[in-house]
Amino acid sequence: MKLSGQEEFEVSRACENVPTGELDNDSGSGPRPDDPLDVAGGKLGDPKDLLLFIQLNELLGWPQALEWRETGRWVLFEEKFEVGAGRWSAPHVPAVALSSLQKLRSLLAKGLVLLDCPAQSLLELVEHVTRVESLSPELRGQLKALLLQRPQHPIQTTGASPCWGSAQPREASRDEEVPLKEQRQNPLRQKLPPGTEAGAVLAGELGFLAHPLGVFVRLRDPVVLGPLTEVPLPSRFFCLLVGPPTLGRSYHEMGRAVAVLLSDPQFQGSARRASNLQDLLAALDAFLDEVTVLPPGRWDPTVRIPPPKCLPSQQKRLPAQLQEATGPSARRRVPAEDPHGRWPHAPGPELRRTGRLFGGLVQDVRRKASWYPSDFSDALHPQCLSAVLYIYLATVTNAITFGGLLGEATDGAQGVLESFLGTAVAGAAFCLMAGQPLTILSSTGPVLVFERLLFSFSRDHGLDYLPFRLWVGLWVATFCLVLVATEASVLVRYFTRFTEEGFCALISLIFIYDAVGKMLTLTQAYPIQRPGSLAYGCLCQYPEPGGNESQWTSMKPKGEDDILSLDLGLVNASLLPPPECARRGGHPRGPGCHTVPDVAFFSVLLFLTSFFFAMALKHLKTSRFFPSVVRKMLGDFSSVLAILLGCGLDAFLDLATPKLLVPREFKPTLPGRGWLVSPFGANPWWLSVAAALPALLLSILIFMDQQITGVILNRAEYRLRKGAGFHLDLFCVAALMLLTSALGLPWYVSATVISLAHMDSLQRESRAGVPGEPPSFLGIREQRLTGLVVFILTGLSIFLAPVLKFIPMPVLYGIFLSMGVAAISSIQFTKRVQLLLMPAKHQPDLLLLRHVPLSRVHLFTAIQLACLGLLWIIKSTPAAIIFPLMLLGLVGVRKALEWVFSPQELLWLDEPMPEKERSIPETGLEPEYSFNGSDSEDSELRYQPKAPEINISVN
Amino acid sequence: MKLSGQEEFEVSRACENVPTGELDNDSGSGPRPDDPLDVAGGKLGDPKDLLLFIQLNELLGWPQALEWRETGRWVLFEEKFEVGAGRWSAPHVPAVALSSLQKLRSLLAKGLVLLDCPAQSLLELVEHVTRVESLSPELRGQLKALLLQRPQHPIQTTGASPCWGSAQPREASRDEEVPLKEQRQNPLRQKLPPGTEAGAVLAGELGFLAHPLGVFVRLRDPVVLGPLTEVPLPSRFFCLLVGPPTLGRSYHEMGRAVAVLLSDPQFQGSARRASNLQDLLAALDAFLDEVTVLPPGRWDPTVRIPPPKCLPSQQKRLPAQLQEATGPSARRRVPAEDPHGRWPHAPGPELRRTGRLFGGLVQDVRRKASWYPSDFSDALHPQCLSAVLYIYLATVTNAITFGGLLGEATDGAQGVLESFLGTAVAGAAFCLMAGQPLTILSSTGPVLVFERLLFSFSRDHGLDYLPFRLWVGLWVATFCLVLVATEASVLVRYFTRFTEEGFCALISLIFIYDAVGKMLTLTQAYPIQRPGSLAYGCLCQYPEPGGNESQWTSMKPKGEDDILSLDLGLVNASLLPPPECARRGGHPRGPGCHTVPDVAFFSVLLFLTSFFFAMALKHLKTSRFFPSVVRKMLGDFSSVLAILLGCGLDAFLDLATPKLLVPREFKPTLPGRGWLVSPFGANPWWLSVAAALPALLLSILIFMDQQITGVILNRAEYRLRKGAGFHLDLFCVAALMLLTSALGLPWYVSATVISLAHMDSLQRESRAGVPGEPPSFLGIREQRLTGLVVFILTGLSIFLAPVLKFIPMPVLYGIFLSMGVAAISSIQFTKRVQLLLMPAKHQPDLLLLRHVPLSRVHLFTAIQLACLGLLWIIKSTPAAIIFPLMLLGLVGVRKALEWVFSPQELLWLDEPMPEKERSIPETGLEPEYSFNGSDSEDSELRYQPKAPEINISVN
Repeated sequence: MKLSGQEEFEVSRACENVPTGELDNDSGSGPRPDDPLDVAGGKLGDPKDLLLFIQLNELLGWPQALEWRETGRWVLFEEKFEVGAGRWSAPHVPAVALSSLQKLRSLLAKGLVLLDCPAQSLLELVEHVTRVESLSPELRGQLKALLLQRPQHPIQTTGASPCWGSAQPREASRDEEVPLKEQRQNPLRQKLPPGTEAGAVLAGELGFLAHPLGVFVRLRDPVVLGPLTEVPLPSRFFCLLVGPPTLGRSYHEMGRAVAVLLSDPQFQGSARRASNLQDLLAALDAFLDEVTVLPPGRWDPTVRIPPPKCLPSQQKRLPAQLQEATGPSARRRVPAEDPHGRWPHAPGPELRRTGRLFGGLVQDVRRKASWYPSDFSDALHPQCLSAVLYIYLATVTNAITFGGLLGEATDGAQGVLESFLGTAVAGAAFCLMAGQPLTILSSTGPVLVFERLLFSFSRDHGLDYLPFRLWVGLWVATFCLVLVATEASVLVRYFTRFTEEGFCALISLIFIYDAVGKMLTLTQAYPIQRPGSLAYGCLCQYPEPGGNESQWTSMKPKGEDDILSLDLGLVNASLLPPPECARRGGHPRGPGCHTVPDVAFFSVLLFLTSFFFAMALKHLKTSRFFPSVVRKMLGDFSSVLAILLGCGLDAFLDLATPKLLVPREFKPTLPGRGWLVSPFGANPWWLSVAAALPALLLSILIFMDQQITGVILNRAEYRLRKGAGFHLDLFCVAALMLLTSALGLPWYVSATVISLAHMDSLQRESRAGVPGEPPSFLGIREQRLTGLVVFILTGLSIFLAPVLKFIPMPVLYGIFLSMGVAAISSIQFTKRVQLLLMPAKHQPDLLLLRHVPLSRVHLFTAIQLACLGLLWIIKSTPAAIIFPLMLLGLVGVRKALEWVFSPQELLWLDEPMPEKERSIPETGLEPEYSFNGSDSEDSELRYQPKAPEINISVN
Repeated sequence: MKLSGQEEFEVSRACENVPTGELDNDSGSGPRPDDPLDVAGGKLGDPKDLLLFIQLNELLGWPQALEWRETGRWVLFEEKFEVGAGRWSAPHVPAVALSSLQKLRSLLAKGLVLLDCPAQSLLELVEHVTRVESLSPELRGQLKALLLQRPQHPIQTTGASPCWGSAQPREASRDEEVPLKEQRQNPLRQKLPPGTEAGAVLAGELGFLAHPLGVFVRLRDPVVLGPLTEVPLPSRFFCLLVGPPTLGRSYHEMGRAVAVLLSDPQFQGSARRASNLQDLLAALDAFLDEVTVLPPGRWDPTVRIPPPKCLPSQQKRLPAQLQEATGPSARRRVPAEDPHGRWPHAPGPELRRTGRLFGGLVQDVRRKASWYPSDFSDALHPQCLSAVLYIYLATVTNAITFGGLLGEATDGAQGVLESFLGTAVAGAAFCLMAGQPLTILSSTGPVLVFERLLFSFSRDHGLDYLPFRLWVGLWVATFCLVLVATEASVLVRYFTRFTEEGFCALISLIFIYDAVGKMLTLTQAYPIQRPGSLAYGCLCQYPEPGGNESQWTSMKPKGEDDILSLDLGLVNASLLPPPECARRGGHPRGPGCHTVPDVAFFSVLLFLTSFFFAMALKHLKTSRFFPSVVRKMLGDFSSVLAILLGCGLDAFLDLATPKLLVPREFKPTLPGRGWLVSPFGANPWWLSVAAALPALLLSILIFMDQQITGVILNRAEYRLRKGAGFHLDLFCVAALMLLTSALGLPWYVSATVISLAHMDSLQRESRAGVPGEPPSFLGIREQRLTGLVVFILTGLSIFLAPVLKFIPMPVLYGIFLSMGVAAISSIQFTKRVQLLLMPAKHQPDLLLLRHVPLSRVHLFTAIQLACLGLLWIIKSTPAAIIFPLMLLGLVGVRKALEWVFSPQELLWLDEPMPEKERSIPETGLEPEYSFNGSDSEDSELRYQPKAPEINISVN
């Protein structure tokens, strides 16, 4: 049964709780000016209520040796003590039999209820409790002695197996009100948030009683009741349920029922407020009114239900007038009620238009400045080290790849060294100044295509490339500045999930395609030797003692098909391998001298090994094996470990695999140019004006490429606290455009996949809180240091060549592949594509599928696939230059989808675009938005319009 | 071998239900003489009760256009109609709010209850129902018209998306009592077992009523109520819950509550028997007494709980006197109550000692004879084809491997041809005659070791090997006959899970080790060429036109370290590749001529590809993708597909990988011997007597190897219907021993891993039954044909060489590896080893861990690991000949464990040995055995002895 631990956009995905006790010490210390998430994210249960630690002590051993033993405990969920195994069970949903609750109700109704009991110690409490009229003085004494007896707690030893305390049962004397050593050392104590109170439930068979006895006590002042509870917390509630053995196991079950009641926030609140027995019973009845019932014939009560991923809001359980007070507007802000985990209706402060020139930029700078100190202090965590290593290697590989491609595309006007230098300078500057410093700048495919076209143009027309490019860059910077000044970045609100996913899928696919493609290029560079084409022919020729080598070169093949057959009669040669031959002063000659066998397949093996190893380590993070610290470490360092494994394998077999090559000399690749590009060169003056035309196209490209990535990185689900800075980012890109154009370095924009990998490696998770509460995603370590160090290291890499040369390229391609796969599998689109392959009845229970017909979901996916195919084709043809326009086209397609899909459907499949906000009647969306609780779930039936008015069919 | 896809010893493992509707047409047609499983296996729910299909029609559209729509249905579990998505939800546990049940109770209490209503049609029923006193005649008419209105069922189209019927709502006229076409075509109809009745629940708001109206009808004679239910079943129950809209959604919820009540077998039974309202309300109260309650603060009621893997027994819900009637002895036979899924206390009829000479054998023959015809007819299923292909390839590979090893061990006295012939003859004969025809015979490692030692001995003492071996074989056959005569096979009852698992783990590890080892041997045969050791040197030398080749051979290296430098001054040579060279009449010469590059790594790639592909296809079987037919097919043919993929890859790249080589000539490998071994040869006569000594050791080996495998294959969890035949199996092995010794062929016993793979490929599963009921494991296709065909094909393989030669060996090694991995991951031992790596709080909720302290579980695992290590060491040293004694030693170790572990612990970790049956007081085990339901689960606490009397600590 997969109630938890499941696909995250399934039903339970809708809620993202901030844990009860935020125990993550390094969760950032800076100011939190306006943080809607922290305000809106409700805590598990109700934040206003105190947590209660409830312990059930059971009386065992009747009639011989009576003793109290702890057999269960509750905080949020129930833990049962497995007597046979001597261990605590996993936390589970506390399911009880209805009959136990009813028996409890009748026992309490005729029992003793002491509210605001003034007892200050266990002894006083026992005095109060035993003042029951029906008891004879003798019985009272016996009961008193029994209640003062010290209970046996399972001793939580350091390891896995707690066992019962071995101490003999004895009476708790007055001085034992001081917590015992083992109580103070209880590891549970650290996990409970401060202010937690305790509730003690004592239940069991007591043969000397004639009638069952039920006592419920609320202490006026909570006090530590000596060794009664395993954790030395002040007890607020005390409950005693004992009686003759006729009722069998029901005392235990009634004890559990009390504990379950007290662990319910609503009942607990009522019990704290109750002024008499009637209030208490009313609270019990209110509890019963809300319970869910599992039929006995269709559910095995022994199955323990694991804790749900998120708990229902307790809001709707409040009385109606209280609900009114908080109001529907407050309720809509709770993220649990939003199917997308963001607020499409309310754009963040970053995207609100100010109406002033550069108003957005000024706001961005102002907002970011307040976070600036924390952008460095937040980076002090070992996880950042892993992120630096991982992203550094990805950046260097990227720089080499794009450097090589650029050198090819521009005939050496730019090369690997420029790529390194530019990446380092631009990246570091961006990390220092940008609005979203988690972004990693890089050359990107679209920009590369554009540069290639620009170079062809200038070569064909005899233009001086670099000066021409400088002017293009100047114009682009100007246009971008205009975009910043006019706050054009607020248009990113039109980039809905549809556009984001199309772009992200495309970029990820290019990543995957490139990784595999580069791998296959290697097998061409190191050809596989088939039996028929084995190139054995390689001889080592020594120069004639006094002659020259002309004899060899003059030899001709004897026949047409006999090209390998050489007359060796005059040659002084040997069969030494080429390196050995060269060492001895000979020259290796023959067709087989340059083939390197085995490398191709070994590279494939290295590629696959590093890919699968990295993926496996990432998956280990969610497995059951190893302590969570180890798992987290292995998951965080998965890429680094995979690279190390690849290097180790490679070093072990010592084959001539292609290695990472880093330039060693610091000078421009194009010989004879200085670092600064001259503004005109050999070009006519008017070219500086004409350059505005290509610059316009490039500006669109850069705006789209930069801002879509920005939107993806600033998604609400990443829970960024420091906010985005779209205007500032674009400003930085424009400024860097100027710099790189002037220095003849490549142009840079945000790289989606590497930036996502960067954020992925910086995830913060809470440590597990109280039992049953899973660690939750807290956000990203937002800081500027990791990026900065990555780019400084990239710059220094020119000097790190001796170390980096041991890294085989196939290993890096494998890591690239895993980055692409991780990026593409993170988007909802991929999950919808998977739905295409699943028969309807095996599909997961997604909220989406509960509300949108499958055929419409498939249609939406198919349209996305078609768009993706079109983009891919355009990217691969010479028409690639209109790529930026096609990206804009995606927004248009999304707009056109409003004619195909109803707003309701688009709400589930995508999200509304800004205008739609006004055109959909708010009431029409209400039932979907307030989806929460079974009533509203089913109420959709009544609210749904009989005939969809906006929905126009595709036909 | 993962029989049911999931960890089978988890909590839910305890139950193994036979599905409600056994829809597997080919589940064997033979007689089922004594089949305890079929008797004991309870059905889902209660077999005596009829299933009820319950449909909730809801009245929607008030006040404009009233119409009935089906919004929910129940058989075992609830399915909700998702209005937004237009599809049925996945089946889930029907959880209802307690308040709805209580509202329903009060509505029924003052409503109309008609028991044994004589209505024969919907019209008559409506007449009866509307005869409520409180209704005015006008209202009565309105209500009648409304009830006769045809409800809208979601039309289940062929594909995934059902939609509402488009027909306009209209009154159901009398002639519509005949089921409609869409009703008859409903696919649900085929899934419901015959005899299923229907229950119709109609609920909704009806504004013209002043008071809520509740009507509950039980029809005397069930009748198809026209179009009321989507499936045209005779309706037994009818319930109407309507009223003014003041109550809001509660009519829907009350309707669900009625449906949930009726779907409960116990309530349904009471409702069938009820004679008045009081009975009905009492049944409702009895239902409420049994329900489990989930607290509102800790459970989100909108979460749909997937159906549990198994349902609780309804036995314990019977009234006490009925429970007494069935009695505890009957209850103990239910497998759900046995933690191990078998009956350690009651050995099967196969293992009961008769006390007569050959009594067991006679019984085996008699029992097996009755199944003989079905042993062939049961094989008529496409799955068997896949099994044949899979096992055939495994057998042939095994025959080649062991043939090669035997040839080496016996200096050619036996070889690959003998291995093929022997495998074919012995295997086919065994499949025709044996007690357990699913067994696959093979040479096994232990026997090979023994043969190697025997050969060394006879060579060292100048003995004629084959005649000596003949006498050993004669003696072994004799000893085995004695064992058969004395019914020694009943001793296999001492082979508990501990012994089985130790043996199975060892054999699987050997399989894995061998597969990897053989793979690594390949990389030695095709060495990897490192840069320093590149063997380029290969020349093609043509014979001197009139001379000979002495010039080449006479050439000496010029210097010490210059061995490759040859003076080629006189040679007429070329650089042609060796095959081309040979074609032209030359001779390839030089150190590099025999190296084949790239093959080593390509072999590794093939090995890994076929292994992972086979594993992935097997896992696909339990994934969500593809229709179940396709998944099952891909899973069944996983090995064949993996082999085909490997062959395809190999053919595509066309490298000289090592291929499967099958002997082509039919004659003994040892030259000059006929097929029949002469009885004495050159040996002295007394050797025939002395041969009894080694034969004794070999007999123990063969008995252990054969019977442990037999015990593993006949495990109760495989649900074999035709029973085991331990005596007959041993008899067959003895007879084949005679034959193979006389013909000089290898000796054969059962091969654990291949036999398990054979059974794995012959699993029968029920098709999914009613919604929510998972397909369940029904057993194995027990027949003799697949094995027979496998061995006939093995024999014919000598002539199939042209086809088989395309299969690369690395692919077969990959399949071997997957067989070994599958075998080792199927045993509980592996899961306990995994527990060693898991922190206690992340461990799965195993029954084992609920009852045995973790440290004891780990200790048990550690002891098993130590035994395994010891066996592995012994197997690898020359002491391997005492291996059979060590296997016996495992039984001894298990016996000794009784001094370390308490009987309770051993019951969970292993199973009791035969003697223990008497020594443990029956009552001491009772609470553990009757573990079922929460009461008995928790009662263990009271029954547990204060001080363990038998448990003696390790210290």
